[in-house]
Amino acid sequence: MMAGKKLEIAIPIFHDLTALDAIGPYEVLQLLPNAQIKFVSHKPGLLRACRGSLSLQATASFEEVPNPQVVLVPGGPGSKALMQDQVLLDWLRKVHDTTLFTTSVCTGSHLLAAAGILRGLEATTHWNTYDVLSQYGAKPVAKRVVRQGKILTAAGVSSGIDMALELAALIADETTAKVIQLLIEYDPQPPFDTGSVSKAGPELTARTIEFVKKIVPITDL
Amino acid sequence: MMAGKKLEIAIPIFHDLTALDAIGPYEVLQLLPNAQIKFVSHKPGLLRACRGSLSLQATASFEEVPNPQVVLVPGGPGSKALMQDQVLLDWLRKVHDTTLFTTSVCTGSHLLAAAGILRGLEATTHWNTYDVLSQYGAKPVAKRVVRQGKILTAAGVSSGIDMALELAALIADETTAKVIQLLIEYDPQPPFDTGSVSKAGPELTARTIEFVKKIVPITDL
Repeated sequence: MMAGKKLEIAIPIFHDLTALDAIGPYEVLQLLPNAQIKFVSHKPGLLRACRGSLSLQATASFEEVPNPQVVLVPGGPGSKALMQDQVLLDWLRKVHDTTLFTTSVCTGSHLLAAAGILRGLEATTHWNTYDVLSQYGAKPVAKRVVRQGKILTAAGVSSGIDMALELAALIADETTAKVIQLLIEYDPQPPFDTGSVSKAGPELTARTIEFVKKIVPITDL
Repeated sequence: MMAGKKLEIAIPIFHDLTALDAIGPYEVLQLLPNAQIKFVSHKPGLLRACRGSLSLQATASFEEVPNPQVVLVPGGPGSKALMQDQVLLDWLRKVHDTTLFTTSVCTGSHLLAAAGILRGLEATTHWNTYDVLSQYGAKPVAKRVVRQGKILTAAGVSSGIDMALELAALIADETTAKVIQLLIEYDPQPPFDTGSVSKAGPELTARTIEFVKKIVPITDL
């Protein structure tokens, strides 16, 4: 589909993002033929991930990347502070007009929702923040990846890897996506089976909500 | 196990590392109570991940982090250039003496092997580089996570997430690890089932080796 053409993929990053939201899909998508990934922000520079021990570098400003074919919005505690950031929201609306795919991971979908991109559409996000999508007129769905035409939203954090493999198949082809999956040896064997609310059950879910309150206010997730 | 005590986790990073090798486990381990993650390198500064569109920041030099309780060595194309780097190898040997756990992801285990830490032990690495472990006297095993006492080695790239959850249970307890798994919503649902050589089969594996030759010399993986 993209043979020979540059495939520009923009990943907006911000302070207090959840790094894996961005880096899981990045690792998949950068392996696409001709992919050129750009980490973008209000201005180039270092952005610290949540809890501060890691910084990622944005190499371009939003205005320097006006026409990416793919946009991938990560989430994290820092997304809340951007829900009324008109520079970001305007950029999201503008690039969405011409993207091949507009995508998000975790609470990144809140930003797409705040930009009005998810109105009336099914979408997903981190399991304990579905209500934010509803507030912006989207229809939250408890699925790992939700596709509505050219919009793909992924659930919490690690789900971005699954979404990115699906996206790789859509952008290139299934064989390329399968090759990338083998290359990153994505044959998950989690030691536990507690990765979703339905599998974890109410007691562990309640405990997790308590846990997260201690490290970051639940409303900021 | 670590209640109330600071848990220092050192992640050495380097040019041309595979970002997800480091960031997958980072996202799990940073959620451990009292965890303090330090990205370390020869000197503080930015290190670019393989293929260059992402840079991560090392905030400390090796000598500034002499006694981490946990060390986690990521891999990537850049690990090859470090196989005779005496500063790194000396640091790995020294910190390994006192770590609670010494761990690696992907070709990060080559560096542990080159430091002599894996001699006579079972270990794993990316599926197409088992021979490097043999050259240094380790016994390569085609498993996703291999534990030998306090040493845990993980297979290619994404396997670091599984390893880190196992490690979280060893450092804290199983409930904490399960809570973290739910928090990062790690309920993998890959769209394909080609994440290991045995599942991908010989044809896709051959195709993957051809694919990787085009983006990075196979010997540099």
